[in-house]
Order: sequence, then C-alpha cells, then structure tokens
Amino acid sequence: MDIRFSENTEPLVPSAIREIFKSLTDPSVISFAAGNPSPLCFPSEQFRRFCGEILEDDPAAALQYGITEGYTPLRQALQKRCRTRFGIGDGNSVIVTTGGQQGIDLTAKVLCNRGDTVICEEPTFIGALNAFRAHGCNTAGVPMRGASIDPDELEAVIKRAERPKLIYLIPTFQNPTGRTMPEDVRAACLRIAEKYGLLILEDNPYGELRFSGEDVPTIKSMDKEGRVIYCSSFSKILSPGIRVGYVICRDDVASKIAVCKQVNDVHTNQLMQMVCHRFMTDFDLDAHIKRITQIYRKKAALMIGALDETCGGVIEYTRPEGGLFIWAWLPALTDHDGFVKALAAKKLAVVPGSTFSCTAGAPSAGFRLNYSMPADEQIIKGVEILKDTAKEFI
Amino acid sequence: MDIRFSENTEPLVPSAIREIFKSLTDPSVISFAAGNPSPLCFPSEQFRRFCGEILEDDPAAALQYGITEGYTPLRQALQKRCRTRFGIGDGNSVIVTTGGQQGIDLTAKVLCNRGDTVICEEPTFIGALNAFRAHGCNTAGVPMRGASIDPDELEAVIKRAERPKLIYLIPTFQNPTGRTMPEDVRAACLRIAEKYGLLILEDNPYGELRFSGEDVPTIKSMDKEGRVIYCSSFSKILSPGIRVGYVICRDDVASKIAVCKQVNDVHTNQLMQMVCHRFMTDFDLDAHIKRITQIYRKKAALMIGALDETCGGVIEYTRPEGGLFIWAWLPALTDHDGFVKALAAKKLAVVPGSTFSCTAGAPSAGFRLNYSMPADEQIIKGVEILKDTAKEFI
Repeated sequence: MDIRFSENTEPLVPSAIREIFKSLTDPSVISFAAGNPSPLCFPSEQFRRFCGEILEDDPAAALQYGITEGYTPLRQALQKRCRTRFGIGDGNSVIVTTGGQQGIDLTAKVLCNRGDTVICEEPTFIGALNAFRAHGCNTAGVPMRGASIDPDELEAVIKRAERPKLIYLIPTFQNPTGRTMPEDVRAACLRIAEKYGLLILEDNPYGELRFSGEDVPTIKSMDKEGRVIYCSSFSKILSPGIRVGYVICRDDVASKIAVCKQVNDVHTNQLMQMVCHRFMTDFDLDAHIKRITQIYRKKAALMIGALDETCGGVIEYTRPEGGLFIWAWLPALTDHDGFVKALAAKKLAVVPGSTFSCTAGAPSAGFRLNYSMPADEQIIKGVEILKDTAKEFI
Repeated sequence: MDIRFSENTEPLVPSAIREIFKSLTDPSVISFAAGNPSPLCFPSEQFRRFCGEILEDDPAAALQYGITEGYTPLRQALQKRCRTRFGIGDGNSVIVTTGGQQGIDLTAKVLCNRGDTVICEEPTFIGALNAFRAHGCNTAGVPMRGASIDPDELEAVIKRAERPKLIYLIPTFQNPTGRTMPEDVRAACLRIAEKYGLLILEDNPYGELRFSGEDVPTIKSMDKEGRVIYCSSFSKILSPGIRVGYVICRDDVASKIAVCKQVNDVHTNQLMQMVCHRFMTDFDLDAHIKRITQIYRKKAALMIGALDETCGGVIEYTRPEGGLFIWAWLPALTDHDGFVKALAAKKLAVVPGSTFSCTAGAPSAGFRLNYSMPADEQIIKGVEILKDTAKEFI
C-alpha cells in the first residue's frame, strides 16, 4: 500500500548535518562538522552524584509523572538566573522543554499557520528552519553582512513576505556564523517587529559561552510588551544528551505552549530536570561555565591562529567571541559545495552553507567550522587540509 | 499587544485531568482520578544502580547528543521483545520516542492534514484526542459497547466522516474503560481499515499489565502490509517520569516520524534510553512485571470487591483483566457531571466521562476510576463515598 503523508511533512528530508554524522564513523576523518559541545566539558562526576542522591532521597518524585510546565524549583531557579544574567524581567513564565529544539518547534506550532512566513537570518540553524517547514511555514532569509543583519534589509524582506508572522534570531554567537548582533541592531529588530506586528523568537543556546568581549543585552531584556519569546537550554553548558531546555515568554503564550507540550510529550524527563536544578543550586555553575569557556577560548584561538597563519588572503572567516562555530568562505567562490566535497575527499568534514539556507537548493555561500570537538592536533591538521585544498580553488 | 495563535492550537485548552491533578494538593482528598502507575512499582534501586554505572563507565555516550531514531542497543532489544511478546514481525523499524505521547503526536503529524478525521473509540485517551486536535484534525467516536466497539458501527462512522485518515485504538486495557478488544473485533478493524484505505494507530501502553485472563494478539501482529503503527512505552512498567516510549512501524513511516522527531526534540534523553536498555538486558524484566501486576491485581480486586459488595444494582462498572482503570456509570444517569461534582464535594476525585469524549461538550456517559494509586484504605473509603453519593442520584 502507498501511504500519503501530510502536506506539511511530505517534503521533509533528514537534516544534512545528521546525515553527515552518520557518515563520520571512519576514525581517520577529521570532523569540523559537529555541533556538539566537547565531552571534556561534561560535569560527569556531578551528574553521577546528583542522580544517585535524587534517586536515593526522592525516587518517587524523580520517576513519577511531573507537571507539563516543568519541575517548579527548576523553573524558579531559571527565572532567577535569567533575570540576573540576561535581564529578563517579571511578567514572564518559564516552561521547561525537551531541549531547546522543542521550544522552537512549539513556538512555531502555537503561532504559525501553514503558509505563514518566518523571517530568519541567512544562513541560520537548520533545526529551526526544518521545524518551521514541518509546520508548513515559508522561511525568508535576511543576509548576514559583517557583524549581523542590516535592519533595512530585514524590513525589506518583511515587506515582500507572504503573511510574515515571526522573526527567528540567534543574536549571540550565531549558528552557523559565530557572529554576535550589536545592541543597536537588536533594538532595531525589536522596533521593526513592533512596526509590523510580528513576534520575535530569540534563540540563545550559546549565550553563556562567551570567552572574550563584553555581553550584549538580550532582545528579550528590551521587550516591554511580550513580543519576544526567549528560548535556551542546558545543552551547551551541561549536556545535550539530557534534553533539557526552556522557553521564557509572556504568560498567555507560555500557557498555549504548555498545552501543546502536554500533547507532545506530557513533560520533560523529571530526573534530568531535578539534576539541572541541583546544578543551579548545589554547584558552582558560574565556575563550571568559566572552565568550559576557557577550553573553548583555547580551541577557537588555536583554529583562528592556524587560519591566520596559513589561509590569510585565501579563506575569510569570522572571529567569534564565544559559542562553538566559525563561518568561513573563499571570496573567489560563490558556491562552496565543490570545495566541501574536495575537503571530504581529503578526510576533512565541514558543513556546507546550503544546509543553513532559508532557500532550498541555494548555493553554499560558505561553510561552518566547529572547534569544540576536534583535538588540538586535528585542528592543526584540518586547517592544513583547508589551506591545501583552497589553493586548488583559487 | 494581542497575539493571534495558530488556527490549530487556538481552540486548545489544558486537559481536564491535568487541571484536576493541580487541585489534588489537599491531602484529605481521595483520588481515583490518577492515570499514574503506583510508585510502589518503580524499581528505584535499579534505576540508581544503572544510572551510576552508565555515568561511571561511559559518561560521554550518556551525556552527548544521540541519534534521532534512538539508542541502537535499545532499539534492537525492543524489536526483539516486541517480536516474541507481541508478535510484531520483521519489516518494521523502532523509533524511540519521548514517552508514548510523542509517538501519538508524531504519527498524527506525519499523516494528517488539517480537517482530516481520526476515528476513535468513544470514550478514549484525552492525550491522544488533544494531540489530534492540535493538528487541526476532527475526531469521530465509535461507541464502546460491551467488550469493545462494534465493527459495523466503526464502518458507519467512517462512511459519515469527512476525510477519514486514521483509526486510533487502545485494544488492550483501554483508557478509560479498562476493556480489551476481542481478537475477532481486532481482525475486523484491520479489514475495515484495508477496505477504506485507512491506517491504524494501535496504542498499547498497558499491554504488559495483564493480571488475569489470556493475551489477545495485537492488531499489529495481524498486519501484513504496514497499515498499523504500533506505539507503547516504559511508563507503565518502569517509570513515566523518564519519558521513554517507542513507535514500531513500516520503514517509510518510521523515517518520516524520525525526521519530524528531529525537529521536535532531536532525540530522547540518552541516559534514560541507556538505562532502559540495561533494564531489558541486565535485569529480570518479566519477574518485575509479574511483581507489579500482582500489586495491581490485588488493588483491582479490592476495588471491584468493594463495588460488588456495596454498589451492586446502583453503579455498573467494567471488570478489567489488567491495566490501571475501571469505567463506571449509573444506569439511571445520562450525564454524570453532577455526580462527579457531588463526589468532589465529598472529597473523592474521579475523572468525568466528558473528558474522554470525541465530541466537545458531550455529556459524561460515566466516569473513570483508578486503582493503582490509592492506598487500600482509601479504596475502601472511596467506594463508600461512591455508594453514599449514588444513593442520592437514583
């Protein structure tokens, strides 16, 4: 029998990145393709201790059904931290989600109808693009130029878009570019959202991972009327495998997200929520974050130093102040797919730019490099491969 | 600012059951309203041991991103158990889901367009009904009569339905009625699905919880062409708080579900998947299930015995051979909402039938009783309240 899939999901195909992961079983391949935090940064010992203590002291709470909105002490701790750390004020509710991805998916679900347009940075996070597409949304890109997007271009894209509804932004250490949106551009985005009656989904999974420069206020901290839905997660500071994230937004939006979460997965796994709460209250989370950002600072500096030394003038690239990614491109190329394939043939995996494009079938304007996962010697050797291959393409 | 929610989610309101839970903070209330397994049935010690060992031996695997389809050894163990235990043959793939609920939600997402109809038993599981509604589906009910639904009535409902797509069934120890569909009705449902080109979602969360009588073959075991999507979970045999479930279905449907899961929550929490695998391979799961079904057998017998003794002739009720629920009704009443409210005033919580109805605003044809959570003395006292209150209503 033939099965007819729904209109929204029929066109979906597996994400190129996850397909790349599956092909990375060859141990001789150097991968700059990951989106993972380094396992060196997982506080495994504390995970073990907290799991043991919680299952000893209160197994029924850890193993029974929980409430959809999340474990109350965790929600309170998140509200407090997001207030002091990211300027997110009162009048907002926290919903704990099954990773940051669920926050994106449910936000699209509660706001968007089939045929609505989500305005995104171009390039942007593939997982968000596919979540929007799975709700039948169109995605329209505003090109990243220099540090960020240009507000005038944002406005032009909104004007051209069919039924624009939501602006999706990763303002800090953006995936895939590593860029951070300056404060004045953030304020301009919020003004434009107000002007056109749109909402903003501010995705901030990397916001805690700053290793140089100064924090920039979140868009949510500038939001007076609940136009910004803020989501983040513990994936990049504790562990992605635990799938604990959160959304903070206006109460009415939070209630609607909770209703949709209830029919999606009832609640986020209870033990891991209780563990995250312990990490926030019974552990020096700031010292831990400081430790992991020092690891990432060194790795980023190693990759950028190697690029500076060997690829200057041939490859251009961003200089992130945090997060996990560098975006690179050969000014001589408009489509980097052939270049990425040539790297793969030399056993260096990177993610081609087309993966992150709002437009299906768009050329790859560049490629994404990850520095959190490869070992130091792999970073050096991988950049050598980059340099050698680039020479064949200029 | 006013926010316009999506057409699919705008009408959604929180589930009555979860709202009832929130009101159950008064310790003097006896609750027959739960859908929870008893915490006495959680193998807490083994959870603690397995978590500790996994985080000691392989923390990076437990804490890093995993693949969307699920932890491979767990998928293999599930395939094997579902083959021997439930007759589910080759040619099917397992996708691990974030609880059974996600399996229902994603099945609806990949199959149904807004305006399609899902045919359900009436009454049925509220979480499934709301998942279908959140995709803009209509729900049409086939009344439960005697042991199950009548295949002729199923066919009549399909004929009347607008764009029928999917038949949702909980054939074994149904929620909320506790009834088990006989084998011939199962076969008839499958034939009718074939005749009308529909798919069947067979939800079997309680299938392992049989405490008397003989197993009935799953519909999936009769399915030769991949028309049946089977979902279940570890919630009722190990713990619901861990949120680990699974879908087993034809490869093309499984692939589409995996793509949608990827944009929904990337993957199910890795440590809990590894723990479930250990429970399936390094633990006597069958002996554990035997132990918990003995607990439920005693509790069900206590509640049914008390009903037989005091409520005979006034209240009618089902006699489940497994699972967590009894369905009860007063033959004298067509709407039980007033009765349920009168019980609540006497501090006995039950779930009114309207909660489980495919038709919004339908009268409550009965009410659901849970025997897994209340203590023995609460069962006795609660049935006393039932009896006393029923006398006021006849």
